Amino acid sequence: MGSLPGNVEHERREMAERYAIGVDFGTESGRALLVAVGSGRELATAVYPYRHGVIDEALPAPDDDVRLEPDWALQDPMDYVRTLQMTVPAVVAQAGIDPADVVGLGIDFTACTMLPTTADGTPLSEIPELRREPHAWVKLWKHHAAQPEADRINALARERSEAWLASYGGKISSEWFFSKSLQILDEAPHVYRAADRLIEAADWVVWRLTGVETRNSCTAGYKAIWSKANGFPGPDYFGSLDPRFASIVDDKMLRDVLPIGTRAGELTAEAAGWTGLRPGTPIAVANVDAHVSVPASTVTAPGRMVAVMGTSICHVVLGATSATVEGMCGVVEDGVIPGLFGFEAGQSAVGDIFAWFIEEAVPPSYHALAADAGVSIHAVLEREAGRLRPGESGLVALDWWNGNRSVLVDVDLTGLLVGATIATKAPEIYRALIEATAFGTRAIVEALEAAGVAVDEIVACGGLPERNRLLMQIYADVMGKEFKVAASSQTPALGSAMFGTVAAGSSAGGYDSIVDAADRMAGLRTESYRPDSANRAVYDDLYAEYTRLHDTFGRGENDVMKRLKAIRARALGETGAGSQVRVS
Amino acid sequence: MGSLPGNVEHERREMAERYAIGVDFGTESGRALLVAVGSGRELATAVYPYRHGVIDEALPAPDDDVRLEPDWALQDPMDYVRTLQMTVPAVVAQAGIDPADVVGLGIDFTACTMLPTTADGTPLSEIPELRREPHAWVKLWKHHAAQPEADRINALARERSEAWLASYGGKISSEWFFSKSLQILDEAPHVYRAADRLIEAADWVVWRLTGVETRNSCTAGYKAIWSKANGFPGPDYFGSLDPRFASIVDDKMLRDVLPIGTRAGELTAEAAGWTGLRPGTPIAVANVDAHVSVPASTVTAPGRMVAVMGTSICHVVLGATSATVEGMCGVVEDGVIPGLFGFEAGQSAVGDIFAWFIEEAVPPSYHALAADAGVSIHAVLEREAGRLRPGESGLVALDWWNGNRSVLVDVDLTGLLVGATIATKAPEIYRALIEATAFGTRAIVEALEAAGVAVDEIVACGGLPERNRLLMQIYADVMGKEFKVAASSQTPALGSAMFGTVAAGSSAGGYDSIVDAADRMAGLRTESYRPDSANRAVYDDLYAEYTRLHDTFGRGENDVMKRLKAIRARALGETGAGSQVRVS
Repeated sequence: MGSLPGNVEHERREMAERYAIGVDFGTESGRALLVAVGSGRELATAVYPYRHGVIDEALPAPDDDVRLEPDWALQDPMDYVRTLQMTVPAVVAQAGIDPADVVGLGIDFTACTMLPTTADGTPLSEIPELRREPHAWVKLWKHHAAQPEADRINALARERSEAWLASYGGKISSEWFFSKSLQILDEAPHVYRAADRLIEAADWVVWRLTGVETRNSCTAGYKAIWSKANGFPGPDYFGSLDPRFASIVDDKMLRDVLPIGTRAGELTAEAAGWTGLRPGTPIAVANVDAHVSVPASTVTAPGRMVAVMGTSICHVVLGATSATVEGMCGVVEDGVIPGLFGFEAGQSAVGDIFAWFIEEAVPPSYHALAADAGVSIHAVLEREAGRLRPGESGLVALDWWNGNRSVLVDVDLTGLLVGATIATKAPEIYRALIEATAFGTRAIVEALEAAGVAVDEIVACGGLPERNRLLMQIYADVMGKEFKVAASSQTPALGSAMFGTVAAGSSAGGYDSIVDAADRMAGLRTESYRPDSANRAVYDDLYAEYTRLHDTFGRGENDVMKRLKAIRARALGETGAGSQVRVS
Repeated sequence: MGSLPGNVEHERREMAERYAIGVDFGTESGRALLVAVGSGRELATAVYPYRHGVIDEALPAPDDDVRLEPDWALQDPMDYVRTLQMTVPAVVAQAGIDPADVVGLGIDFTACTMLPTTADGTPLSEIPELRREPHAWVKLWKHHAAQPEADRINALARERSEAWLASYGGKISSEWFFSKSLQILDEAPHVYRAADRLIEAADWVVWRLTGVETRNSCTAGYKAIWSKANGFPGPDYFGSLDPRFASIVDDKMLRDVLPIGTRAGELTAEAAGWTGLRPGTPIAVANVDAHVSVPASTVTAPGRMVAVMGTSICHVVLGATSATVEGMCGVVEDGVIPGLFGFEAGQSAVGDIFAWFIEEAVPPSYHALAADAGVSIHAVLEREAGRLRPGESGLVALDWWNGNRSVLVDVDLTGLLVGATIATKAPEIYRALIEATAFGTRAIVEALEAAGVAVDEIVACGGLPERNRLLMQIYADVMGKEFKVAASSQTPALGSAMFGTVAAGSSAGGYDSIVDAADRMAGLRTESYRPDSANRAVYDDLYAEYTRLHDTFGRGENDVMKRLKAIRARALGETGAGSQVRVS
């Protein structure tokens, strides 16, 4: 059979191929991706929109008379099980492969998304007598009602000069694990008592898949103040918050945190029934969507940053040693790639700013241009803004439409635009907003470099790089660095599948490390964005203006943004930040 | 006939009534208004849109191959004659009155709008051999190409510490008389030589009407550096600008400046032919549109400010003595009301900012609301913005979309908006822009008061007060002062008619002073806007923020606005401010 036609030859290779599955649990839906282990080729994908989506007004029927306060955001854990049931069989069927050829499965999740369960992993929201209690449900990452608890956590940490505070930009978020846990204790102590476990939804899903409770180093490190060197904060710290909180780690968590890249266990018979996969299929410890995108974007070593660019930007860069960098979301050993420190930074709003602008500030004439040309309004604005030279708009903005995460870590900062005239056009403002977010990224990169963390090249992934070439070129010009783009448009699911292959190991048809997996399965697009030196020079001047405004309004010289928020709160009859949100 | 029915009685009174005519020469058109002398009742109005409008691209055909540089703005003086010919007979006919019952006529004009003429008043643009020379035409107020000349005038004045500079906010505008005259000398010395007279168009029209060349104290004082006490700058000053410019006053102007409220002369037979009025009809010396609105708004004494509110705002307040006030456009004795000092301040853009906002920054949803309700987009925004409480938007803006005239006198300042979030809505920005312009007015009022010039009450006139009640209430709340509104919607033309009655005097059926005329002919609307004390308190807080930003960005602490303009100029390949504009 020496000279088979090419397509038959190809088919033979495919038949010999093994596969891995990654499941990415997002905010509104879950997605499974089936990839070839040898090449990373993406064969099939399936999405399940959660039945109950984001629960932010009332509990699901028949309990929808239980209303939620503003800032609450819950989920139904059974939506995660349904995701497994709906999407994994679908991708296996779509790809037409033998489930026995799936070597491993990994998952990633939004974080911190957490829930209380019984000792056997039953979510408290599944217990009839607790079902009408909002605190029994999953608290989604964007549940923001635990701000008073976060304030106490931070105040006490500062008072005690806790060393870990510096790893988190000096501030623990209301979104994170202990803020949310403490809110349960504060507002629903009976639920707190009923919870044998408090656990990241990511780890809970792996528990459901394997029957083994594990805790992964990524969520533990970035969301639960854990470090490889020092573990969790001690009972004296937690006890000073509330005596009942002193033993939370020993009572309701696990001290044994597994590095990502570890096998959590094997698929149980029950979960094999859900997924259609073979019982015993290796399952990776859980991971976080942004972080798992890093190896899926080819980055497994120091010096190259991954920017996950969408409604917000998450920046991750690796270092061989730790360092104190202003305003990090977290610095975690084993947090992204085993054996390295993962530095995570963030910009609270990026795509969200452009979406706001288009929704609230673009006049009909541009919408008409888009309709006439049969293209999106984004495309029209990109075209018009792309005709402008850097500096031509005469505008500069501070990209704080949703506060500033890195490097100032201040949710009370707001957006600023300077330079408007009666000749200013909408595409000029649009471009200034893009530039402002690029300046925000540059501020983060410069903070890392100033602390000795190298950022020589940036790999972008996420939705924005695919949609907005102008934005990518502006980022390259502003940064003076090449921007490459991940080949996959589903880097979280791809990264999870890659970790699935590592859970299997080479002996079972996978890889022995995420570095090996990335070498074979991850790739970059051939096109990249190289900085234009003339544009760079103009942007250096504009960035100097950005920096000066950034420091004036962000570092206490003029706290007008905070005072305007206080005036606004008074106008609305609010008691202002720190007021406790109550569940009715 | 002792008991005539009321309407016949009324008719008898009307038949015994005398009339006056005011002609208001605007930017795009001229308007005549015929009013009853006894009551100020407006009987008829007629508008003539100038045949050649604003000439800013090329001279009128057949000379339209002569193109103009940017920043040029010319007019055809014959359009002013046509205005007299078209509108005055029209209002007499409309009102059905006997032209012999018109006791006097006054005019007002945009300023500084000036032209070169021969000794007999023939405009140089009417001389065939000069017709293709742009410098032979009327330079309209918004001709901005004389900036290099204004820069020289200011630099020399500062160098010589000329005392008059303080009366003009420390800066002579490129719009004003000597800037424009010097540009003619610089760029077209043959036109300058051919000009026996350089004259305000206002005074030129009065010359055409009366056969007598006069110069009025309003334009002389506010636009030509004249003061009652000291006259014009001396030949040594003008000679230092250019030796050929030394004797401009004696060669091409008149030193004998007449106070407004004076009779310039009587209607010539030729002008009687144009207008249909009786030869010998008294004609007032010319005036300026904003200034003539002051008595037409009932203000003839110190303590009450008139705000002429439209695309921009002109503020005029009277004082018994002079004072040095930061950033005035001018302080002129006899400039507004004979015997008093007229303080004039200005905001470069007000209605223009709202027009910009609606054109460039309001999304389709609000336009759809307007279309559905059959109202203007302004009305929708006013309604939505009116539902907000002061401070609720969380926004504050600097109203410098077209620079700042008073009190900073800096055209290179630009607009700023702070406080935007991804929840900010268009009506919130709209309201913040209104508030910013109100803060700008408050800054002017406070500068006047700090210098001892009382402003106890404000009377608004112009287009904005009629159209935007929300704006008026915000102004009253921000200022903490009552805002009244002039009864007439045509205060310039009414004011000119009132000065026409003063030119006649009581012996000829008019009045002996503008104070008497205002008492009888000017009025206020019954509705006024009184400050709400709760709103005032919030606005005091917001004004404190405005003031701090105003000083940071306007007084040299952070010159980002100027640097952005410089970056913009470089991006566009411009040489920047001060570059000479050439006529091709």
